[in-house]
Amino acid sequence: MTVELISVGTELLLGNIVNTNAAYLSQKCAALGLSCYHQSVVGDNEERLTEAVRLALQRSDILILSGGLGPTKDDLTKEVTAKVFGKELYEDSHTKERIEEYFRRVHSDQVTPNNWKQAQVPQGAKVIDNHNGTAPGLILEENGKTVILLPGPPNEIVPMFERDVAPYLNGMQPEGIYSKMVKICSIGESKAETMIADLMDAQTNPTIAPYAKTGEVHLRVTAKAAGGEEAERLIAPVMDELFRRFGDNIYTTEEEVTLEGAIVNLLKEEKMTVTTAESCTGGLLAGRIMNVAGASDVYREGYITYSNDAKERLLGVSRDTLEEYGAVSRQTACEMAEGAARAAGADAALSVTGIAGPGGGTKDKPVGLVYVGCCVKGQTCAKEFYFTGNRDKNREFAVARALTFLREELIKIRKR
Amino acid sequence: MTVELISVGTELLLGNIVNTNAAYLSQKCAALGLSCYHQSVVGDNEERLTEAVRLALQRSDILILSGGLGPTKDDLTKEVTAKVFGKELYEDSHTKERIEEYFRRVHSDQVTPNNWKQAQVPQGAKVIDNHNGTAPGLILEENGKTVILLPGPPNEIVPMFERDVAPYLNGMQPEGIYSKMVKICSIGESKAETMIADLMDAQTNPTIAPYAKTGEVHLRVTAKAAGGEEAERLIAPVMDELFRRFGDNIYTTEEEVTLEGAIVNLLKEEKMTVTTAESCTGGLLAGRIMNVAGASDVYREGYITYSNDAKERLLGVSRDTLEEYGAVSRQTACEMAEGAARAAGADAALSVTGIAGPGGGTKDKPVGLVYVGCCVKGQTCAKEFYFTGNRDKNREFAVARALTFLREELIKIRKR
Repeated sequence: MTVELISVGTELLLGNIVNTNAAYLSQKCAALGLSCYHQSVVGDNEERLTEAVRLALQRSDILILSGGLGPTKDDLTKEVTAKVFGKELYEDSHTKERIEEYFRRVHSDQVTPNNWKQAQVPQGAKVIDNHNGTAPGLILEENGKTVILLPGPPNEIVPMFERDVAPYLNGMQPEGIYSKMVKICSIGESKAETMIADLMDAQTNPTIAPYAKTGEVHLRVTAKAAGGEEAERLIAPVMDELFRRFGDNIYTTEEEVTLEGAIVNLLKEEKMTVTTAESCTGGLLAGRIMNVAGASDVYREGYITYSNDAKERLLGVSRDTLEEYGAVSRQTACEMAEGAARAAGADAALSVTGIAGPGGGTKDKPVGLVYVGCCVKGQTCAKEFYFTGNRDKNREFAVARALTFLREELIKIRKR
Repeated sequence: MTVELISVGTELLLGNIVNTNAAYLSQKCAALGLSCYHQSVVGDNEERLTEAVRLALQRSDILILSGGLGPTKDDLTKEVTAKVFGKELYEDSHTKERIEEYFRRVHSDQVTPNNWKQAQVPQGAKVIDNHNGTAPGLILEENGKTVILLPGPPNEIVPMFERDVAPYLNGMQPEGIYSKMVKICSIGESKAETMIADLMDAQTNPTIAPYAKTGEVHLRVTAKAAGGEEAERLIAPVMDELFRRFGDNIYTTEEEVTLEGAIVNLLKEEKMTVTTAESCTGGLLAGRIMNVAGASDVYREGYITYSNDAKERLLGVSRDTLEEYGAVSRQTACEMAEGAARAAGADAALSVTGIAGPGGGTKDKPVGLVYVGCCVKGQTCAKEFYFTGNRDKNREFAVARALTFLREELIKIRKR
């Protein structure tokens, strides 16, 4: 079955807010096995909203509209949808009571008459209670089409979807979509795709879709099947083949595991701690490791050493090295990593030193040149990178490459 | 003139990524005086993409497509658009050279043949160079309609829009749109909006539009005018009024100046250096300061001190303090800031200690409790915050509040 999303709100068209609802609903619908081929955004405008609803009803089975259910005259989603279906609105006493109760609960002295507009419900619609606001959700079914209206605020739409809409949609499905994620590092997007071009051509069920992330490639393997077992039977050989081709470069097959999460897990398994010494990335590498809840088990402290003085004092990089090779050099990166491991008493250390730009580049050492040092149990090595982005991107890539480098070294240790 | 956005990518339909490009482009188009009534998202599918382009061309003057310009077979945006316009593709030698140069620059051994697909350009199209990637942007004009194709990655689309697309769109307009940005910190969104509600109601030219950012509010003052002088005459009194109302809380009126950039400038003006000592934010605060090109003038080194041991050893926080008040306390925050200033020999220091979540909260110290310490020229104080987001959001807010806190203290010094 197909689902289509229409987000209603002038604030979206003006770019005042980012459409996180669409991403949330898309993800949830995909997980429920619904195919979403269209999403659109329209403003609080009767004519354009009517057109959008009509078009969506022509091409999709299920339509989810979000936003425009509030108390103001601007809010038209319910009125427009009811009109398209030729339904009258009536005052739903259950919803009116809930609105009254809501205002009692928040001790609000701001109950303006326009709030009762939210108790108006199209004939035949199923009402979805809103526990975090006043506008209820609504489900209309007519001529084999289903239209679901939900309010715009994320803190209202998310609990309503989880509690009422998801079970409702699940009950509607004849066949499901099942997918598996394969996350790959240490290989670029083009190369990864070349490595599976034949599979992508040959496969129709399951399909393989690549997604490029900074320093990573994600492959989504998606099967249509009558049930979980059939899906498993379809997906398993493709997964085996991907493992044969990408091997250790696959860092996870779990949707929610990040590269830094996989590394924190590896460190925990090896009972190792890690530290960081950063120059041009200035804390971003540490910050990314600490995105992982529970990273404190493996990460205790870290150093940001922009100046040469800090590199000497905090990490023990020798002045000779700094003078002979410069702060941005393989040698300095190695000494930074070794020094950080020593200072923090950590089993592993990553260092980053480079020229993020826009200034600071020379002919020999251009903007984008970055060295990453990695010290694992006393063994230190460094890698040289040339990034071609702006300052932000160069730093982001440096962080991604540093994490990948650490992972490679940890995998080597594991295999010993 | 009307503009319509089509975002291309299955990853958007699956909810794998949030459509930040649409928000960015909407905001920029609004600032250029273009009316955006429709946005849509379609996958990398020839038929549906063709339909979407055809529909958009019927109802809008300008069409901006983003995504689907990459090297893979999935990437169809250019091919589909060329077909709709009946244009052949040819290999653009300028673009091919740029791609070759790009790969030489990144010393990549991963130049796979599919990359040359990106040098294919529709006849008559204007090429927009991509300085941060390999896929160029393209502008097609035909029968009074303009179609602009841009790559999907934000770090590519943003600079291309700023440098080439915005001036191009501005040149198409009969009347000019002029806007000024006012960036405010230390005041919440609701309060800021209440403070200018009367102005927002009264103003039609220029208009004032508020945008909420994490810990900041941005106001865009936009005038329609025949020329720069007339625009200046319209905008100036509104700017004066905003300065009267928000005073020092306006940290910049420059589009491209960030809060951290304004702070680095303040520090430079005062000839002061700054350092950071971070627990729960784990490097993100330092990372944000170092977003600023040239931050090395004011920032030499910083500390990530997750463990109590690191807080004692690197920052000299006293064991008594940690035992009596705990690591997450006003007292510890103050000692961290003082210790960091001392250890780095810096004039100012910010510290952050808190419980980002999801674990680690207690009844007395719940998830979201964060203390920020600020030491400026030996004077130290701390602030307590209760954030209500998830781990990521709590850390992001903590960083924003810490920067705002430092700015407030620097402004005080300035006024002495």
